[in-house]
Amino acid sequence: MKAMIYHGPGRKAWEDVPDATIEKPTDVVVKIETTTICGTDLHILKGDVPAVQDGRILGHEGVGTITEVGSAVTSLQVGDRVIISCISACGHCDMCKQRVFSHCLADEGASGIGWILGHLINGTQAEYVRVPFAETSVYRLPDGVTPQEGAMLSDILPTGHEIGVQYGHVKVGDVVVVVGAGPVGLAAIMTSRLYGPSKVIAVDLDANRVEQAKRFGATHGVLSSDDDWKDQVMALTDGLGVDVAIEAVGVPATFQMCLDVVRPAGHVANVGVHGAGVPLPLDTLWISNITIAMGLVNTDTTATLLKMVAEHTLPADLFVSHTFDLGDIEKAYDVFGRAAETQALKVVLNA
Amino acid sequence: MKAMIYHGPGRKAWEDVPDATIEKPTDVVVKIETTTICGTDLHILKGDVPAVQDGRILGHEGVGTITEVGSAVTSLQVGDRVIISCISACGHCDMCKQRVFSHCLADEGASGIGWILGHLINGTQAEYVRVPFAETSVYRLPDGVTPQEGAMLSDILPTGHEIGVQYGHVKVGDVVVVVGAGPVGLAAIMTSRLYGPSKVIAVDLDANRVEQAKRFGATHGVLSSDDDWKDQVMALTDGLGVDVAIEAVGVPATFQMCLDVVRPAGHVANVGVHGAGVPLPLDTLWISNITIAMGLVNTDTTATLLKMVAEHTLPADLFVSHTFDLGDIEKAYDVFGRAAETQALKVVLNA
Repeated sequence: MKAMIYHGPGRKAWEDVPDATIEKPTDVVVKIETTTICGTDLHILKGDVPAVQDGRILGHEGVGTITEVGSAVTSLQVGDRVIISCISACGHCDMCKQRVFSHCLADEGASGIGWILGHLINGTQAEYVRVPFAETSVYRLPDGVTPQEGAMLSDILPTGHEIGVQYGHVKVGDVVVVVGAGPVGLAAIMTSRLYGPSKVIAVDLDANRVEQAKRFGATHGVLSSDDDWKDQVMALTDGLGVDVAIEAVGVPATFQMCLDVVRPAGHVANVGVHGAGVPLPLDTLWISNITIAMGLVNTDTTATLLKMVAEHTLPADLFVSHTFDLGDIEKAYDVFGRAAETQALKVVLNA
Repeated sequence: MKAMIYHGPGRKAWEDVPDATIEKPTDVVVKIETTTICGTDLHILKGDVPAVQDGRILGHEGVGTITEVGSAVTSLQVGDRVIISCISACGHCDMCKQRVFSHCLADEGASGIGWILGHLINGTQAEYVRVPFAETSVYRLPDGVTPQEGAMLSDILPTGHEIGVQYGHVKVGDVVVVVGAGPVGLAAIMTSRLYGPSKVIAVDLDANRVEQAKRFGATHGVLSSDDDWKDQVMALTDGLGVDVAIEAVGVPATFQMCLDVVRPAGHVANVGVHGAGVPLPLDTLWISNITIAMGLVNTDTTATLLKMVAEHTLPADLFVSHTFDLGDIEKAYDVFGRAAETQALKVVLNA
């Protein structure tokens, strides 16, 4: 089969590799119909995620049809169309039982991390993919949900919702700022609206993304290249700052921007994948009564969000800016990597 | 009257100053019966809290008798014995209505911070003190609670409880580590027991404090000077780390110790007063699903804790290691400042 292979920082190629097969009784093999490229894949290519080794098939999002099931799989059949979650979780361990599927302890790839597809084992940017712990790691694609809508449930919608909105404790009347209006930031904006905030402010370097953000539910946009960006944000609050600041970029400057505008007793939720540490000015913050949360999507709300996509409460197709044939994935990476220029949001690959 | 005056980093003196008087209709004046010295006062003397200016009377803990009431005070009378909270809060502003009394917006000293006594206005290490917003900032001393027990409600018990235990989300069965077994760390240990943790591990450089901590409810003690301190803590968990790590020192090394032992999806609660920033290794933590909370005591649980002290559920007198006459406060500072040697916990000054 063909697959997108990582060859160390800055290097990748669409190559012939051995077919994905069942390796464990709890696996299924899925023939990919639709996959996508995530900002995290770009972080991997920058070298920010050193656990990813040369030879790994990239990708952790996708929808497809089951072509093979392991001997222990009883609730899925060949021919089922499924959404593949970016988190592979056993469902049995202590972490899974506490709904922290992101830190599943099962020994698949590595114990203690549920994000293994396209990270510690081969991923979804391929013609076929082996999905471990299939019964707790895929979702049947409901009638009326397209494969490209379904692929938004693999990662970005639950990530924006759980790590941005829920970890940020967004509640009725809040002023929320989302720093970074890429796909995950937009997912945070879209899902934040479910909680009744009074304002959702999109902040980005890119004027197009700030404008796009309004289609996703942002009530205001601020260009972070403006010298007075902070004053603009503060002017949208009662002067004390925002209730919730969601970081959706993954660099020290954007994390600091969140600290700069959060009000006393407010919340900072870090969604971005970081390749470097950041300074935490505890000498001023110890007195601030803020919380800072961070993490990998747990996927404990994926099924709920999928229902809302099926009911069209969450317009998941809004995320898709470009579609390509799966064989043109190198072109898709190029377009996604130059998002400021190409106005790419989610680039979707169809087999 | 006599009072302990701050004269810049490293300098303080017990001096004659003008008497405390009513300045605003919502004030009372309290004749101090009992006051104490807080670790925060030592941070001020180190220069860690630059807002404290030369000439300021130190101290934000104490119990005494009201000698004067402002014209707007209707629920307190001359002669009432009261516990003075370290937080002075108007009770009316948006922050107070959200129970974030720590960030009261009233313009007294400075708008936006409720800790003003011994910080932005004159404090309690004096013969008399003016207490602003008295009706929301003092608590009547109940029968059966001694003044020295009452003084533990001014700051350390609510701080350990709210910023350590509640911000750390301690719950039934948790393994909790408290780094720093000074008075506030011990208050976190004592109040954590109310939530049913399975283990409470005290970590300190000082063998005496680690031993003392067991009287306050610690189930285990670890010396942080041991090379294998981290292994010792991890061995008391299921191998994944503690559920809650409470920082009660206020230096970068102890904050990092909390990050070192917290499990995925665990909580770090910073109680320490920091004079410098700390590094936050987001490149490894972005994936960790931890929360980090910090702040100044809100005092929204002070009344509850006071009831529990009155009912002897919380043995507040355990904190008192030394008592002095108020006039000997310079001696008390010396003893408290050499706590490792003198085995001081809370030093109490009685008028």
